[in-house]
Formats: sequence, C-alpha cells, structure tokens
Amino acid sequence: MPSRLPRNSSSSRSTVQLLVAYDGTRYAGWQRQRHALTVQATLESVLRQIVGHRVIVTAAGRTDAGVHAWGQVTHATITTRLSPNALCRALNALVPPDMLIRRVTRVPTTFHARFSAVRKWYRYRIVMGPLKPLFERSYVHFVPRTLNVSAMRRAAKAWVGCHDFRAFHSTGRSTTSTRRHVHALSVTRQGREVWIDVEADGFLYHMVRRMVGTLLEIGKGRWTPRIAQALMDHRQPPVVAPTAPAKGLCLMSVSYD
Amino acid sequence: MPSRLPRNSSSSRSTVQLLVAYDGTRYAGWQRQRHALTVQATLESVLRQIVGHRVIVTAAGRTDAGVHAWGQVTHATITTRLSPNALCRALNALVPPDMLIRRVTRVPTTFHARFSAVRKWYRYRIVMGPLKPLFERSYVHFVPRTLNVSAMRRAAKAWVGCHDFRAFHSTGRSTTSTRRHVHALSVTRQGREVWIDVEADGFLYHMVRRMVGTLLEIGKGRWTPRIAQALMDHRQPPVVAPTAPAKGLCLMSVSYD
Repeated sequence: MPSRLPRNSSSSRSTVQLLVAYDGTRYAGWQRQRHALTVQATLESVLRQIVGHRVIVTAAGRTDAGVHAWGQVTHATITTRLSPNALCRALNALVPPDMLIRRVTRVPTTFHARFSAVRKWYRYRIVMGPLKPLFERSYVHFVPRTLNVSAMRRAAKAWVGCHDFRAFHSTGRSTTSTRRHVHALSVTRQGREVWIDVEADGFLYHMVRRMVGTLLEIGKGRWTPRIAQALMDHRQPPVVAPTAPAKGLCLMSVSYD
Repeated sequence: MPSRLPRNSSSSRSTVQLLVAYDGTRYAGWQRQRHALTVQATLESVLRQIVGHRVIVTAAGRTDAGVHAWGQVTHATITTRLSPNALCRALNALVPPDMLIRRVTRVPTTFHARFSAVRKWYRYRIVMGPLKPLFERSYVHFVPRTLNVSAMRRAAKAWVGCHDFRAFHSTGRSTTSTRRHVHALSVTRQGREVWIDVEADGFLYHMVRRMVGTLLEIGKGRWTPRIAQALMDHRQPPVVAPTAPAKGLCLMSVSYD
C-alpha cells in the first residue's frame, strides 16, 4: 500500500528511458490488448508493482506478434526513490525469463520513445537448408534450399533512399504518408544464415516483413530482381509483396539525436 | 499396414547410424521411461512409423534431463527400402521441432554407438552477469557476476590425464571402474560467456556437471584452485563437488576409430 505512506522527500516524478529486449514468441506483440498477453502490459504491470502507481510505457516500435527485440526503446513517467540502476535490477528480478531490461536512464520530460526516434534498425534472419535450425529455431525463418543471395542484394538496392513504400504497407494502421527514408539495406551471408538488415527513419506496418517476403521470392528464383524496382511503380505493381513470418524479425536498435 | 504388403526384394535389414541433435529442455533425458517424455522414446516412435516395425535406438551418451545434444550418435537395426538420405528426410519431417537428425549412414552390424565410442566431447556454457541471458537462456547457466577464469583454468589442469574420478561420480548408475582418461579440458572466455570443454574416453554419471560445479566455486573465489587437486585424493576429499545445472551442458560430438 505505498500510496498510504507519507511521501518521501527524495521520491520524485521523473521520465525514464528503458532499453528493453524480449523474445516475442509468447507475446501478441508490443501493444496492450484486452484479451492477449503483450509485452507492454507485462512491463507496465511489473513497473506498477515496483513504483506503486499506474504507469504507461511507450515504445519506439510497436512490434507485431512473434517479433523479437534486442534494442526496443521505451519511456515512462514514474515517481520513485529508486536510482535508475536499482530500478533496472528490480525490473529484471520481476519480469519473466523471456524479457530483459538492458538499461534504465533518466531522460528529459520532453523525450518521447517514438516521436523523438530518428532511425530504427531491424534485422531479419533466414536459415538455409537442407537442415532445419534447432537451437535458434524461434529466432529465424527456415527455407529448405539455398537462396541466390547476390540476386537478393541486387534487388534490395532499389529500395535505398527516400521512396514511397506503399507497396509494402499493410492496412490495419492508419498513416499520413507512405514515404520513408531507407538509409541502409544489406543482405549478407553468415554461413548457413542470410541476414537482411534495414535501417530507416521509420517503417510502415509490415514493411520489413513484406520487403523480406519479396526478397525471398527473388532469392528462390521465382521472381527476377527487377520486380523490386517495379514494385516502386505504384500505378502498376506487378505482384503483391508477400509477408515473411514474424519470428525471423528482430528490432535491433533505435537512434535519437 | 506395411507388414501385410509382400516383402519387396530391395527392402533389407541393416544397421544405421543416426547423428542426432536436440534441445533437451522438454525431455526427461535420453533414456526411455515409463511415465516421462524422453528423446529415445520420441525417436523410436517416429522411426517405427516410418519403417513399420518396432525399433530400439541406442545412444552413445545417455544424457540427463535438460541436457542438450548437438552431436549425439545413435544406432538402430531396421528393415527399410529407404536410402539413408531419404530416411533422414522422413525423420526430420516427423520429429518435433526440438529434435534434428543431422545425418543417417549405413554402418557394419558390429557398430555399437556406445561401446564402439572412443571419445566424447561435452561443452558447458556459462553466461556472466550483470545482465541475464535472453535468447540463449535455455542453453546456458547464468551467474550474476564475473568469474575468475584464470583460476578456473589453473584448477582444471589437475584433471587432465588418466585419473580416478570418483569424487565426481553420483550414485544412481552402477559402474565397474571410476577411472577415466580426460584427453582435454579447456576453460575459455568468449565475451560474456565462459565455455568449459571436456573431452574424455568416457564419463561417470554427473561427472561433467560436478567438475563444472567445482570450477564455478573456484571462479567465484569461494574455493582455491588447489581444491581441484585435493578432490583427487579419495581418502580425504575436502569438499563435496556440487552439480551444475543441466541446461548449460551439451554433448558436442562422439568419436569412433
């Protein structure tokens, strides 16, 4: 019953930034939902236990069901006597094993995890067959054959820069503009894995997974790399970009000025 | 109902070696048990579905509950028309996602996965804090502090060679001799991880986990590295070697002449 205690003079209202990692397998995504387990609700509930009042945690990227995060950035306004480091330890002692608070820092009250973000980096991991992945099976998408990585790399070049990415936009979330600036997009082979790393000033709903879905078709030789460029012509898109499975995707980091 | 079909002339009885990997988290170990899920029972049941007759699968190392394997070697005598490669594909299509058949090869009927083995290699993975592991949490043992790796390495030297390892032998399995030849034992640091790799001609029940338990006490500074040597004096063992948790352990490979 912390609210009944006399207010301690060293207990102060402040905004904190939480750097959060999670295994998205069990969760219906980041955002709170009435009848589903989400990362936001789990984190808010643990934070409330610690600080003794209701808390709203806002994230930079509202990851989908099954998507993982290593460098999700969030913020919350709380009243506590705990130092940021002590708060971090308390959180880690109480969150489930598939969540991790990497760091807690005090930030100005003007900081907003989503609106202050200038860049986000997502990685998509693919494991090529013949053998299916074992220990990493929850974090990669498996394709039973070898992909043409250089064709995928060639195709991906069409999307670097400032473009209208409506071809990769799934409805379900309103958005004012479908223009985004992709700063970097690389396709690299790491042994049996292919990593697709995308950095942009922002992402449309399902944008990374539909870019990856398109590159997978190209890597399998079903589509030519020219499809990537043709998808940017919005009057006559030649195909519908398929959405790659969630579990291969991970939000790696978010940058601020 | 394959047993009712006329026997195909190309269907022959043969012994096959199966190279098997598994995530031990869900299993009560390798060995078949009446009321528990085990790797052996799972594999035998899938093999029976494919070949149409009862099969016994024998493993090189009967790993404990929660212990993982990357290079478990097993053998079985089966009657099938399938080539080893086709059998491998069929097995992988039917085993649960936490099991993987890496290779199937035909071997002489004299081959025995356990008795023909001349060397086994186990790896134990430790993650040092302060931050707990996330994506690798099922495959590592977490210690919240930094370990003295050079003290652990110094201690481990006492166990290389041919010794009586009864100090690390847990009762529960009968054995004729407690002498084993440890060919190599290394303690290496990999970033925030410490890997303990042990190669020997054989292992006593719980031997690796009790060696690791001892090295952990030494790494934490609770015991001096000299304890390692003193444990080899069986008249007056100074301490009881603790057993490190199962989930950090993985059977990496088994060698044959």
